[in-house]
Amino acid sequence: MKSRTAVLMALAASFTVSFAIADQDTSQISVPQGYRTWFHHHSTVNMTGHQPDGNVGLQHVYANASAVEGLKAGKFSDGATFVVDRFKYMEADNHSLTQGDRKVVAVMVRDTKRYAETGGWGFQAFKGGDPDQKAVKDGGKACFTCHLQLADNNFLFTRGSN
Amino acid sequence: MKSRTAVLMALAASFTVSFAIADQDTSQISVPQGYRTWFHHHSTVNMTGHQPDGNVGLQHVYANASAVEGLKAGKFSDGATFVVDRFKYMEADNHSLTQGDRKVVAVMVRDTKRYAETGGWGFQAFKGGDPDQKAVKDGGKACFTCHLQLADNNFLFTRGSN
Repeated sequence: MKSRTAVLMALAASFTVSFAIADQDTSQISVPQGYRTWFHHHSTVNMTGHQPDGNVGLQHVYANASAVEGLKAGKFSDGATFVVDRFKYMEADNHSLTQGDRKVVAVMVRDTKRYAETGGWGFQAFKGGDPDQKAVKDGGKACFTCHLQLADNNFLFTRGSN
Repeated sequence: MKSRTAVLMALAASFTVSFAIADQDTSQISVPQGYRTWFHHHSTVNMTGHQPDGNVGLQHVYANASAVEGLKAGKFSDGATFVVDRFKYMEADNHSLTQGDRKVVAVMVRDTKRYAETGGWGFQAFKGGDPDQKAVKDGGKACFTCHLQLADNNFLFTRGSN
């Protein structure tokens, strides 16, 4: 039979874990410096009609050196970081689509302990690329809802080291 | 009255200059190493219907450090280099366009003396990104035909240092 102290300690430990999970925080994630000269992995255009419609735009995916290694290895070290830089697109002359204003800079940072609740990835996004306009306030849960379907690819839409 | 020797020398000099202009060569331009981590300036999509139709695709423009400086200064030093990395685009689920196979790696290298005939820019292009499949065999004249309209912007379609 457990002592009262042991029971209380177990409860406290349980509470601490629950508290940590419930309140995963990604507000400390900042806009990575110099991501425009990280490895540009690929770009995609989400045309009008794409869902969620907030993701409509011409977007570029950048990987830092650690993330490039992770793409090759299929396994990511803490510190691996991706940036999705999304712009409005505009129809231009001669059947072209060109970049308009920046919509958002979205970031995924690998930290298996800190972001255990969202697959080991910390999510943050900056409206218009403004470092002071952090859009993710739920610890990344909404982002992870979509990324969850990529559990076979480390929760990444980005595949391969191309 | 000129001596016969002087006339012959003048003719020879004239011939040399004409010969150099007529035979500007860009075959020594190679695929720049590491351009995927150069500054990614912007991307554009040339949709079906775009002319010239060989340029249809999703294309990324990269600038080396010297070219980034040039974009800021509005004046380019020799060695400034741009790469246009063009891919087929594919229509994907959820109203998205994604990258397909690489069509070409196109390069512009600044060298005001060597490429005087084409605005100081040397043009070369590599089919499928293959360093051995050089597509430009006319010294860049065909490329320059389109770039000539951008004489007010150093013959570049790319504008600004964004």
